[in-house]
Amino acid sequence: MARYFKSDNTAPVAPEIIAAISAANTGFARGYGDDDWSLQLDDRFSEIFERRVKVFPVSTGTAANSLALATLVPPYGAILTHEEGHIVRDECGAPEFMSGGARLVLMQGAGAKVTPEALAATLAANPTSVHTMQPRALSLTQATELGTVYSPAELQALCTLAHARGLAVHMDGARFANAVVGLGCSPAEITWRAGIDILSFGATKNGALTAEAVVFFDCERIADFEFRRKRAAHLLSKMRFVSAQLLAYLNQGLWLRLAGRANTLAQRLAAAAAPLLMHPVQANELFLRVGDAGAAALRASGFEFYDWGASGSGEVRLVVSWNQPEEDVDALCAALAKLTAGASSRCP
Amino acid sequence: MARYFKSDNTAPVAPEIIAAISAANTGFARGYGDDDWSLQLDDRFSEIFERRVKVFPVSTGTAANSLALATLVPPYGAILTHEEGHIVRDECGAPEFMSGGARLVLMQGAGAKVTPEALAATLAANPTSVHTMQPRALSLTQATELGTVYSPAELQALCTLAHARGLAVHMDGARFANAVVGLGCSPAEITWRAGIDILSFGATKNGALTAEAVVFFDCERIADFEFRRKRAAHLLSKMRFVSAQLLAYLNQGLWLRLAGRANTLAQRLAAAAAPLLMHPVQANELFLRVGDAGAAALRASGFEFYDWGASGSGEVRLVVSWNQPEEDVDALCAALAKLTAGASSRCP
Amino acid sequence: MARYFKSDNTAPVAPEIIAAISAANTGFARGYGDDDWSLQLDDRFSEIFERRVKVFPVSTGTAANSLALATLVPPYGAILTHEEGHIVRDECGAPEFMSGGARLVLMQGAGAKVTPEALAATLAANPTSVHTMQPRALSLTQATELGTVYSPAELQALCTLAHARGLAVHMDGARFANAVVGLGCSPAEITWRAGIDILSFGATKNGALTAEAVVFFDCERIADFEFRRKRAAHLLSKMRFVSAQLLAYLNQGLWLRLAGRANTLAQRLAAAAAPLLMHPVQANELFLRVGDAGAAALRASGFEFYDWGASGSGEVRLVVSWNQPEEDVDALCAALAKLTAGASSRCP
Amino acid sequence: MARYFKSDNTAPVAPEIIAAISAANTGFARGYGDDDWSLQLDDRFSEIFERRVKVFPVSTGTAANSLALATLVPPYGAILTHEEGHIVRDECGAPEFMSGGARLVLMQGAGAKVTPEALAATLAANPTSVHTMQPRALSLTQATELGTVYSPAELQALCTLAHARGLAVHMDGARFANAVVGLGCSPAEITWRAGIDILSFGATKNGALTAEAVVFFDCERIADFEFRRKRAAHLLSKMRFVSAQLLAYLNQGLWLRLAGRANTLAQRLAAAAAPLLMHPVQANELFLRVGDAGAAALRASGFEFYDWGASGSGEVRLVVSWNQPEEDVDALCAALAKLTAGASSRCP
Repeated sequence: MARYFKSDNTAPVAPEIIAAISAANTGFARGYGDDDWSLQLDDRFSEIFERRVKVFPVSTGTAANSLALATLVPPYGAILTHEEGHIVRDECGAPEFMSGGARLVLMQGAGAKVTPEALAATLAANPTSVHTMQPRALSLTQATELGTVYSPAELQALCTLAHARGLAVHMDGARFANAVVGLGCSPAEITWRAGIDILSFGATKNGALTAEAVVFFDCERIADFEFRRKRAAHLLSKMRFVSAQLLAYLNQGLWLRLAGRANTLAQRLAAAAAPLLMHPVQANELFLRVGDAGAAALRASGFEFYDWGASGSGEVRLVVSWNQPEEDVDALCAALAKLTAGASSRCP
Repeated sequence: MARYFKSDNTAPVAPEIIAAISAANTGFARGYGDDDWSLQLDDRFSEIFERRVKVFPVSTGTAANSLALATLVPPYGAILTHEEGHIVRDECGAPEFMSGGARLVLMQGAGAKVTPEALAATLAANPTSVHTMQPRALSLTQATELGTVYSPAELQALCTLAHARGLAVHMDGARFANAVVGLGCSPAEITWRAGIDILSFGATKNGALTAEAVVFFDCERIADFEFRRKRAAHLLSKMRFVSAQLLAYLNQGLWLRLAGRANTLAQRLAAAAAPLLMHPVQANELFLRVGDAGAAALRASGFEFYDWGASGSGEVRLVVSWNQPEEDVDALCAALAKLTAGASSRCP
Repeated sequence: MARYFKSDNTAPVAPEIIAAISAANTGFARGYGDDDWSLQLDDRFSEIFERRVKVFPVSTGTAANSLALATLVPPYGAILTHEEGHIVRDECGAPEFMSGGARLVLMQGAGAKVTPEALAATLAANPTSVHTMQPRALSLTQATELGTVYSPAELQALCTLAHARGLAVHMDGARFANAVVGLGCSPAEITWRAGIDILSFGATKNGALTAEAVVFFDCERIADFEFRRKRAAHLLSKMRFVSAQLLAYLNQGLWLRLAGRANTLAQRLAAAAAPLLMHPVQANELFLRVGDAGAAALRASGFEFYDWGASGSGEVRLVVSWNQPEEDVDALCAALAKLTAGASSRCP
Repeated sequence: MARYFKSDNTAPVAPEIIAAISAANTGFARGYGDDDWSLQLDDRFSEIFERRVKVFPVSTGTAANSLALATLVPPYGAILTHEEGHIVRDECGAPEFMSGGARLVLMQGAGAKVTPEALAATLAANPTSVHTMQPRALSLTQATELGTVYSPAELQALCTLAHARGLAVHMDGARFANAVVGLGCSPAEITWRAGIDILSFGATKNGALTAEAVVFFDCERIADFEFRRKRAAHLLSKMRFVSAQLLAYLNQGLWLRLAGRANTLAQRLAAAAAPLLMHPVQANELFLRVGDAGAAALRASGFEFYDWGASGSGEVRLVVSWNQPEEDVDALCAALAKLTAGASSRCP
């Protein structure tokens, strides 16, 4: 039987969340977010973030990201972001679509992290002019697409630069829980206290069925979000079933427990694969240079995962899910140790 | 305690469908529709429709409608439809958004039904010219927003007219099950056999949690649907949980059983309210002229429903859900009988 | 040789304007509106309108209308307008395109004029709700598409209603000069003094080569107009040649002289055609019910014009241009007199 | 008095073209391209290109580029192009806007030229997947934004690669005449014979008032161009005045004479500035590394031009226009010779 390390979005739903869905299935309830579950969300998220926030549930991370960005930038706006971002590579142009044709301006940086230098240079290269698209938002991913995290100080430096030029800052938090656990920070420290204006708060990858939330720290920016969500067909009639997921996800720290388990197992793999690591392992993803032969060997042993990087690079991505069987991790550690031994002996 | 007749989207989820979601929650599964549940959909729907069809699940009826229409018309296209349609009144411009700015051209007709005369006149008034938007699709609602249905012959007449001018025909089937039951037809008879090219197949209002499907009868029209769905953030990673709902919905006729119950109860109400009826009751909705005092009296008795029509018209809408308690219906029949008695005595 | 009454946009360019283009053709000049001609526009238009205004030249009336409207409404906005409007019938969806998918909500009214009653009813039928498109602009045409004009008082009543609900008011002034002359009003009286926020100021139909201007009375609304104009490819590099046209058009009352001539000739025709008139002749257009035979007779005599209304209605449109030869008008008067005589004798 | 080398779009209009505009100003003419001038365009361009082509005039190069690209790619399409392109840097997102949110995917290459290697690598990095934007067009600039040209063989190699993957190829020919002259090729050789599908044929920079044309070599691709042009407000009513410009521009080789003069003068400057040249001078633009002091010295002598590259790079752009006074060129040669002498002495 296959051992999946392809993506955390292939994982099942946490039992607590399935139970919450069933529990919400009681008779009639007002539609479109006017139900008893949805009406609790603002308060519940405000507790988590230690300040008043406004929360809008949606079904997909792509919806959260692109609707949030469409609220931040005009159609002629530029969204500055890392070239490895999900909004760049995996959303088939949803940000362009939702915004009416805004542009993603790409930056580079190790570990898929935007640096202040890259941001400053990009801002300098995009001056205000009627002939060019106008930088209006910075979008950062936490944890990043390469399994690294931004520290609060790193975020603050970037947000300060962005705000000085009038840009709003969006955080793609599809793996926000993994970042919070990985950093040992409070949710507030890596969001509004560091300058983040809007967060895509992910839950689906970390145990929900289909539940994400857009969290506004700056209520003035909400403006027309609700119209945009409806118009993009993301206002669910039976919203209670998404909101119930989010409430269960936050209840008694479930979200951090699930992410913590995945992160811990990822650390165990990181230790086994140390010489092969391409990036620090700070959340629940590992990127390894195993060589094409190494990748083939792992697949032959029943492990499923994605190749990464250019064809022939011998790079692979391994994602640990909240429900990853311990035995899969143990088996993978053993397999990686074998590869590592080889690698060490080959690389003096 | 309130007795809800506001909308079938305030109803809970059928137990069979909740059970199917739980049953699908087993270990890892490929994402984005490549799972074992989703891969059954084409076959299953092909059985239901007695021909090969291609099916794409989405989360909302608005997504189904607007993505289907965006596949049919260019940005400069016109979508001909009845002025009472959901796409006109209740989707905040989703069709315009998804299509890149197409236009809804509105028609009138009793019972929210488009007539061949209205369609012919509208086509004649919109000739081909570079200065005007080009009619490219006809969108019909089955059952309509006023609780009536199109017969197979009526559909055929409209589709023939539309096809002759090169328009594709879309059916908004948010209450498709209620229409099938109400007409006593096969699904095929009121879709592709009558000339429908694409169907928004609704399940949410009739007992699903959040599951709709776009059904293509003409596979050449699919073209770019999948890219559009992804780009609009409606391709779910954990798609299995939507597909499992649809499979359960179709299993052993559940969908027709649920709709049948609602329709039958609606007929009971129709009998009680006969003199007040504004439109024939052919599905699960009633539109009554009860007067403002009548509406107030019903509300005072604990019934919840929407006013309809212009302010002061004294018109109301009552929707019967799949799970409507019999006692609510009995109580409403009694209340309506009282109103009717009054009405009869007042109107010689 | 044919006698054209098809449209004022088939007319040539006034000699003063051709001369101004040649005069502007002197050596290098800064591009994109930073030239000596363009820099005079704000002052010149401010004199004409008796208050500070901000002016942006564009090449087409459709560009002026649709860019102005896109500045006023969000993508989920509704633009309320008369069903006979140019933005509805003759721009192939430019307002929808420029705005990112806003909707035109249509009103009726005699002589192509919106009435306060129609506006109030339409506003009442479009309440604020996340499910529906939001009325954000009213667009009025002056002179209208049926050759009538709004009086200052009529405009004021409509603007007051619109502003009370938060809508901005746009005026499509493709034939603004004809309206000013027809009403004997100052430009200010039928624009900002009556409550108009933005004007599409037309010149092309009335003697320019290709020159229109968007005039902002409310500078806060300018917001992002310049970016939108550039992005829609309507910021000309050699802008001086458009601005020079506008300056010549306004110089020494040329614009009113040209429009005055057309209006006067139209009045002569109106007198000859009195019994056939469908609408008051208040600018430079006549709409006549001549019958199919009458239309054929006119065409046989060498007159060119458009049929109007439904096929078989026997209605025609005649437009008088700034350069219309007197002899064409005389000949048409004679031909119309014949038809009228017939009409009178036929209709006791 | 200043000596302008800022841009060829600051130049005046060639006398032959002004004369043609005046000559076209004779009485009535049908609107929207149905006039005698516009109806000659297809034939005239077909002669120039030695095959049947279909031509659509527009007012700006940005309109030509973005409308052409919108015809080639779906909203989820990717347009591959050099990062220095006008469509990337100077059109405020017009391609994104006209296409409904397509994406520009950027490539690098010396002299602003796309290389087959860069194109192949970019295609490999953008595989077909529902999660990513789909490469559908390649856009090349001829002459490039850095004053270089593609040879027929270079174009052929790129077109072959693009077509093999199903991409259409667009050429931005804002300075097409300068390229034709610079290469000594026929128009056919560097367009359809090399594989170009659509050309933005520029005239404004090279002596027209405001006239560009979209030339389709592959008529099947025209599809919906006319609707898109109208909808973007680029279908002019008095089209004859644009078409007359284009006819005059092509008449008796005027276009090549004007471009030839500019190119020849540019060569004279190139000789004087040889050691400072950053790119080969193959059309009418020079890019020089003069240092900040050198730039200041040139400006002090009355020359006007743009800095280029990053702030502090000491790089400048000089553009020679069709009407550039010889004395300006002589004076600039002298000034450059001084700088060059200094440069040589400073750089052993």
